[in-house]
Amino acid sequence: MNDLLWLAPTFSVAALVLAAFLTVRILKKEEGTEKMKEIATAVREGASAYLNRQYKTVAVFFVVVFLVLVVLAYLKTLSFFVPIAFLTGGFFSGLSGFCGMKIATASSARTANACRSSLNEGLRVAFSSGSVMGFSVVGFALLNLTAWYFFLKWYYGTHALPVGLDEPTAITNVMLTVGLGASFLALFARVGGGIFTKAADVGADLVGKVEAGIPEDDPRNPAVIADNVGDNVGDVAGMGADLFESYMGSIVAAASLGVAAGLGFKGVTMPMVIAAVGILSSMVGMVFVRTGEETSQKVLLKALHQGVWISSALVVLCSFFAVRFILGAESMGVFWAIISGLAAGLVIGFLTEYYTSSHFNPTKTIAKSSETGPATVIISGLASGMISTALPVVVVAVAILFSYKFAGLYGIAIAAVGMLSTLGITLATDAYGPVADNAGGNAEMAGLEPAVRVKTDALDSLGNTTAATGKGFAIGSAALTALALIASFKGQIEIAGGTLVLDLLDPNVLVGIFIGVMMPFVFSALTMSAVGRAAGQVVVEVRRQFKEIVGIMEGKGKPDYASCVDIVTTSALKEMIVPAMLAIIAPIGIGLLLGVNSLGGLLMGSTASGFVLAVMMANSGGAWDNAKKYIEEGNFGGKGSQCHKAAVVGDTVGDPFKDTSGPSINILIKLMSMVAIVFSAFILQYALKLF
Amino acid sequence: MNDLLWLAPTFSVAALVLAAFLTVRILKKEEGTEKMKEIATAVREGASAYLNRQYKTVAVFFVVVFLVLVVLAYLKTLSFFVPIAFLTGGFFSGLSGFCGMKIATASSARTANACRSSLNEGLRVAFSSGSVMGFSVVGFALLNLTAWYFFLKWYYGTHALPVGLDEPTAITNVMLTVGLGASFLALFARVGGGIFTKAADVGADLVGKVEAGIPEDDPRNPAVIADNVGDNVGDVAGMGADLFESYMGSIVAAASLGVAAGLGFKGVTMPMVIAAVGILSSMVGMVFVRTGEETSQKVLLKALHQGVWISSALVVLCSFFAVRFILGAESMGVFWAIISGLAAGLVIGFLTEYYTSSHFNPTKTIAKSSETGPATVIISGLASGMISTALPVVVVAVAILFSYKFAGLYGIAIAAVGMLSTLGITLATDAYGPVADNAGGNAEMAGLEPAVRVKTDALDSLGNTTAATGKGFAIGSAALTALALIASFKGQIEIAGGTLVLDLLDPNVLVGIFIGVMMPFVFSALTMSAVGRAAGQVVVEVRRQFKEIVGIMEGKGKPDYASCVDIVTTSALKEMIVPAMLAIIAPIGIGLLLGVNSLGGLLMGSTASGFVLAVMMANSGGAWDNAKKYIEEGNFGGKGSQCHKAAVVGDTVGDPFKDTSGPSINILIKLMSMVAIVFSAFILQYALKLF
Repeated sequence: MNDLLWLAPTFSVAALVLAAFLTVRILKKEEGTEKMKEIATAVREGASAYLNRQYKTVAVFFVVVFLVLVVLAYLKTLSFFVPIAFLTGGFFSGLSGFCGMKIATASSARTANACRSSLNEGLRVAFSSGSVMGFSVVGFALLNLTAWYFFLKWYYGTHALPVGLDEPTAITNVMLTVGLGASFLALFARVGGGIFTKAADVGADLVGKVEAGIPEDDPRNPAVIADNVGDNVGDVAGMGADLFESYMGSIVAAASLGVAAGLGFKGVTMPMVIAAVGILSSMVGMVFVRTGEETSQKVLLKALHQGVWISSALVVLCSFFAVRFILGAESMGVFWAIISGLAAGLVIGFLTEYYTSSHFNPTKTIAKSSETGPATVIISGLASGMISTALPVVVVAVAILFSYKFAGLYGIAIAAVGMLSTLGITLATDAYGPVADNAGGNAEMAGLEPAVRVKTDALDSLGNTTAATGKGFAIGSAALTALALIASFKGQIEIAGGTLVLDLLDPNVLVGIFIGVMMPFVFSALTMSAVGRAAGQVVVEVRRQFKEIVGIMEGKGKPDYASCVDIVTTSALKEMIVPAMLAIIAPIGIGLLLGVNSLGGLLMGSTASGFVLAVMMANSGGAWDNAKKYIEEGNFGGKGSQCHKAAVVGDTVGDPFKDTSGPSINILIKLMSMVAIVFSAFILQYALKLF
Repeated sequence: MNDLLWLAPTFSVAALVLAAFLTVRILKKEEGTEKMKEIATAVREGASAYLNRQYKTVAVFFVVVFLVLVVLAYLKTLSFFVPIAFLTGGFFSGLSGFCGMKIATASSARTANACRSSLNEGLRVAFSSGSVMGFSVVGFALLNLTAWYFFLKWYYGTHALPVGLDEPTAITNVMLTVGLGASFLALFARVGGGIFTKAADVGADLVGKVEAGIPEDDPRNPAVIADNVGDNVGDVAGMGADLFESYMGSIVAAASLGVAAGLGFKGVTMPMVIAAVGILSSMVGMVFVRTGEETSQKVLLKALHQGVWISSALVVLCSFFAVRFILGAESMGVFWAIISGLAAGLVIGFLTEYYTSSHFNPTKTIAKSSETGPATVIISGLASGMISTALPVVVVAVAILFSYKFAGLYGIAIAAVGMLSTLGITLATDAYGPVADNAGGNAEMAGLEPAVRVKTDALDSLGNTTAATGKGFAIGSAALTALALIASFKGQIEIAGGTLVLDLLDPNVLVGIFIGVMMPFVFSALTMSAVGRAAGQVVVEVRRQFKEIVGIMEGKGKPDYASCVDIVTTSALKEMIVPAMLAIIAPIGIGLLLGVNSLGGLLMGSTASGFVLAVMMANSGGAWDNAKKYIEEGNFGGKGSQCHKAAVVGDTVGDPFKDTSGPSINILIKLMSMVAIVFSAFILQYALKLF
């Protein structure tokens, strides 16, 4: 193993060990008062119950797809390893989401309790929890791929190769489909979790804040536990599954394109080694995340940024030597492609911050527009989200052009790997947010002294900014990964003996593009309406409890938290099915009806429009959220003013934008490409090609 | 002229004669009471003043582009007829908008007055006014093209042809650029008019309805005249210019593709003859638009539908013989392409009706969501708009596939001609809406008996439905026309000695698509924010007048209407410049930086995403408007209820959606293609091709 590949198993295991170590350290901390424990337990139980039921529902779909893949393998359009690869991808994605959720729900009360002694302690607990998520994701993903790689290398070294394939191609063909499992699980996790979290949030706010006029996280609100559960199943488990599959997708796409580019095994090991050094760099960066007792956003943000910067710098350094060692001095273009991706990720992250943080003009303008009522808040927020798509598109465009110039299609894929190489730490800074949010909820409900709430609020507010940055990363990497997967799709078509000619003036391609561009819109509509419907049910239930439970508003009657959790659980599980099916059926349907060229157009159209729409929704939503917070800080009349009410409308609209529909689009575009790849030989063989 | 081409000059002149005849007939009617005359005069003066200033501003840009084109002609990248063709396209587009506006402002009081005697009379006056617009547009457009055709045929028959071109190609090359002038004017008219009308509307509503609680069209509202002026400059003149350029664009694109397909002069005359028989059919259909005294929407709508149906049937019949006569029995594919376009237009129109009329579920669902406040109204409206893009995309896709199968790229262009062939009557049913709206305003302000208002309301409400249908037509035809223009762009590149290879996996094309998909978002953001800013100024002014003018709320003090008109005029003219420049600079910039392939990607990306976004914005906006009206009819608590207030928020957000940003996108996509065509040789010669 003079190809540095030993780094991949080493650091994937190291990541998991670190996650385990952090978990033990967190669990040793005290959860605080009895009341705090009780609340934490309620959230923990709700989240576990939801995730268990979600996984059970998803398992049914996995079995169905597994059987379909077995049939395809039987029809010889797939290797018989594919169905198993599919299952492992889904299993490890689910497992890392489960770990992240478990530790997040274990950490909220502990974070609140730690904040009672010091802010730095609070930050360390919350950030440790986020790190468990981050390192579980990268650890499981890389370990899973490494295991497949070694197994397949052994297998094809001792058994006959599939007809017409060389060894590296045979290996990457199977590895690609590990990604399908991850994508498939991620879609359910993102859509289901996203619907859960926002239905609970919107429902709780509409009756609690708007109608009854009680504050956020007030224990009298029957939907408050559901709201806190939602943060964990949506923003932790859902986010984790999303990035798990981006991470895995970028690596397998790069491996496949590396082989297609004639790099042989070196093309496969290169992205895995980059991922491994990324884990190492993230570990080092993590050490540098610490702060003093000042609660200003600026100082806290600096602490987190410091970790990300150090990790990024280390990745640059390590991958320079890795590329030189593996591919040689004549292939340094690959190194520059990695840098293009990494730089693009950072720039998109900062752009997201610019468009969503209340320190900058766009969000301030939205806050100001509240003076003329909710309608202008909506108009200015949508306009701001729309215009915020310009620069990220340009950044991605530049990254595409550079990485392609440096290393062809392989360059685009390796740029995505570069962008995601520091995922360990970027996901940590992201997954830490919901923990801080829940800690605040815990402090509020447990009636802790206001000083604690000030500290958790500082952590939470920071979490909103890092969440926005994380979303920028998730979207940017999704676009590059999807493009790499489309390139792999072309390769798969050619391996299966077909050709993919994506001429824009071919009406089939054209029609594919039109339908592809439309897909993210329809998908977003489905997820948004699902949130609306589920939130409506929560509203009815909360109103009922306010009316029927005696003494609830005086804090004497105990609200029935479980019924609200149950309502959103049932709704989310029901509502996630149609959008998920759409993502599977659309590419197969178009492929079978109009042929692979049309399918290629579909993938490209939905990747481009999905990227733009996802950026818009994330940024509009983030900006509305922070505009509301900005007003709550005392601007434009502060809390309770007409301006505040108008801003709350914006925030409520933004909720499904930024936490349900927007992020789900990331997965939609990758999953459709994955489906196209896995079904390529089947579609090629059975397409009707009507036109 | 055994090629039926005599039909084109004959019926274009006939259309103009009809328009003149209708104008005289309308002007003979009485305008009603002194008060009615006074109001009508105020609106008329405001609209004329705005349009004069708009044309003056636009003239400056026309001179600039004219000079640029002269330079290009001097550089030999263009024929020296092009600058003049550009001017005539703009001139006739402006002229028909001007005529439409003049007659619309002359008809509102007359419609109100006619409604005092009978509903049928009212419908006839308003519909006659719309017909003047409709027939002016088709008459001027076809006459302009016919004149150029005969002139160029004479010229190239007696002078040397440009190097390397045959006669039909030389002719269509110049004719294409008549379309550039029309597009360029249309963009200013749509964007400027759209900003004007919605800034006035939103501004008037925000202070009048929401803050002061006075009804729509109340004469005490200082912005009321500006609001009425807006209908005329936006929905009449702007809409007219939009469809003028679609109509012209589809004809010239078809002519150019017909020549490219080897049909020679027959390829050129075919679309012109189809347009001519379309005018004839529209005239016949017009006769069938009449109604009794029942004010139910159903009866009125039937009257209008009847006209459209009869026209469509006639077009089918006539074009069958026209195609057979001109191209012969072996080319009947062209006939089927026409039918595909015509059918697609009708289906999209009905889909628009389904998604925006309060008789159907989508709008009812939005109305119901008002029970949980403005946020859910926005969420459900956006979701409904997004999902409403699915079927129109499928319809356009099917039309593309069929028309291409029947007649290649020429088929797509001729499908657009087919869709727009009945423009005379479809535009009439559309442009009649603002007249009815203004008639209602006039009746309200002049204090006519409520029975009159009931009648004008019936007409107005119908106008909203036909406006939605008209928008569907405008968007559908824009997409097909833009595609045809992109195909012509390829032809122009080849004529200029280059090649256009639109391979989706070429990173330059890919980047073009990403940027193209983003363009309509940024463009919409710019136009939406412009409305927001201008409306904000109106709000400030109206508040000032309410405060400073003594007795204004008691109807004793006279509001200063002119100052509001002046504010929106100035704003609209200022704000229209940046978006308009973007549409010109983006394609030229991308072409010069990255080459023609990237530019091709840009055009395709923006056409696809522009179509989807325009449908979404039009349908969300229309549905919000009608959901509000549905509540006003007494559902969910009726006028003044909490539900109504929530619905008004949706309506206000929808205003710039449906009347500014959405429709402007139509022109954006066509204009960018036109710019690409005209500048193709220049870009080919001077492109830097950085990557």
